[in-house]
Amino acid sequence: LNVDDFTIIFAVNQLENLSMKLTILGCNGALPAHGRFPTCQILDLGAEMMMIDCGEGSQIQMQKFAVRSSRVDHVFISHMHGDHYFGLIGWLNTQALMQREKVLHLYCPEILKQIIEIQLLERLSFEIQYHFLLPNEKMVLMDTEKYKVLAFPVDHSIETHGFLFEVKREKRILKKEKVQEYEIPKYYYRNITLGKDYETKDGEIISYEVLSDPPKPNLKYAYCADTAFNENLIPYVTGVDILFHEATYTKENVDKAIARKHSTAEQAALIAQKAGVKQLLIGHYSSKYKTTDAHEAEAKTVFENTIAVYDGFSIEVK
Amino acid sequence: LNVDDFTIIFAVNQLENLSMKLTILGCNGALPAHGRFPTCQILDLGAEMMMIDCGEGSQIQMQKFAVRSSRVDHVFISHMHGDHYFGLIGWLNTQALMQREKVLHLYCPEILKQIIEIQLLERLSFEIQYHFLLPNEKMVLMDTEKYKVLAFPVDHSIETHGFLFEVKREKRILKKEKVQEYEIPKYYYRNITLGKDYETKDGEIISYEVLSDPPKPNLKYAYCADTAFNENLIPYVTGVDILFHEATYTKENVDKAIARKHSTAEQAALIAQKAGVKQLLIGHYSSKYKTTDAHEAEAKTVFENTIAVYDGFSIEVK
Repeated sequence: LNVDDFTIIFAVNQLENLSMKLTILGCNGALPAHGRFPTCQILDLGAEMMMIDCGEGSQIQMQKFAVRSSRVDHVFISHMHGDHYFGLIGWLNTQALMQREKVLHLYCPEILKQIIEIQLLERLSFEIQYHFLLPNEKMVLMDTEKYKVLAFPVDHSIETHGFLFEVKREKRILKKEKVQEYEIPKYYYRNITLGKDYETKDGEIISYEVLSDPPKPNLKYAYCADTAFNENLIPYVTGVDILFHEATYTKENVDKAIARKHSTAEQAALIAQKAGVKQLLIGHYSSKYKTTDAHEAEAKTVFENTIAVYDGFSIEVK
Repeated sequence: LNVDDFTIIFAVNQLENLSMKLTILGCNGALPAHGRFPTCQILDLGAEMMMIDCGEGSQIQMQKFAVRSSRVDHVFISHMHGDHYFGLIGWLNTQALMQREKVLHLYCPEILKQIIEIQLLERLSFEIQYHFLLPNEKMVLMDTEKYKVLAFPVDHSIETHGFLFEVKREKRILKKEKVQEYEIPKYYYRNITLGKDYETKDGEIISYEVLSDPPKPNLKYAYCADTAFNENLIPYVTGVDILFHEATYTKENVDKAIARKHSTAEQAALIAQKAGVKQLLIGHYSSKYKTTDAHEAEAKTVFENTIAVYDGFSIEVK
């Protein structure tokens, strides 16, 4: 076992403790305005790329920001307002024209199936597996060795779900010095990361706790699609690495926010603060705002670590 | 009757002999590419603004190119390939959010009604009057005092119609010197433009032909949506002021054009030449072409008065 072997093994180990990269393709609210596109986000988990909502023109934004969207196998649609799904049909059509063959998993309200099938059924070169979001339900949408995705109800004018994405980091981290010191054979490394002890030829038991550090906590990204300020959301987003919370308005328009079941920047920041998240992103701006500096400033008075996102914004969590 | 009166009257007369202004909002083919949006055109006839096809992102282009699309009361959808209609749902949704009340006339294949109603029926603030295009039929879609619109079948892989827009110029043009010379009263000017003689107090009949010039020919714009090269189109587009004919490919890809029922730039120019049009516009480029200079050069070898259009291109005919 030489240094190169170690490099490879630790690289693999690191790879298995995946990262998350979020890219905002559209950050605006119901009406496209001021060059800002409607909602679409890409969450790149390395082995999987997820799409969250798909407003009109999202495929054009994917080209602009060099997102290889053919990698997307899972699409999550929060609710049936057009600024969150009108771009899906065009993207699906393009995937078909590019002769996609991979199954696409679509997590969405049930009505979307009809809308797609009436337009594309005969033209699709690939299968869509639908997973319907049930009104008002908290649901586990995916739970694999590497990822977990939850849907949870938020508080909007129609049935709407938020999503919580978790990158599992269940494997322990090998201690380079210790595995060398105890001359653990290479083939056994994976067992140690899974929490198994090692028995030497002499029958001595070396605890996995000696040979490895505990796993890092899961990476978490929570997306709170269109929603009013509602503290019921807090349990779902507590402690996440990144929280996206809509902030359609600034606080002088709090009446509009309440009436239309949207939030102000201050309200988004309050949720972030109470949920103890690490980073807050705000977006889904009303077309009445030419710039979004005021949203960011307002949120920061409550929760400093806030960014008002823009189309093309990108952030990575490791 | 002073000089100012004359200015006003002749201005009105000119106004009634309307102009046409065409603006291209999207000029690309099936896949948006190289910053080019899918098909959408706006034909401004002064009193009426028409929309021809509405690919994804058209409402974003309307903002970019300052088209006041709330003026549009008539939308013409040539066929049910997504690059010609996926943007309609978003534009309709925006019209509803802006609380449009005016009736919208939609000339389209019948299936589009279902696609719209399943998504927007309860949300629309205005009525849509559907006028279905019948497969393979030549149809008069509008015939008012000022305009006439025809649909005619073209030759594509699914049922597709082209459209012919005519601005009627049926009124004769007053001869300024003659109406002054014969002291025709102002109230009678309109009658003369409609072809009525004038009788003086002394019973003398002055022919309208003395007092006015014949009307100018109608202004005509023909839109040949996706189509293969087919000489059956020629009768519909003969002598038009502007012909838009698709030119998805350049001639080295004529095999693809034939197989997919599209045209090359050279073929578009041949139609223009044989139909004796005044101006040819080409577009609907395949995403394989980064630039469209080759399309224009190729067409010009056959028909000199050709322009390869681009998003934001505008042309006026008076």
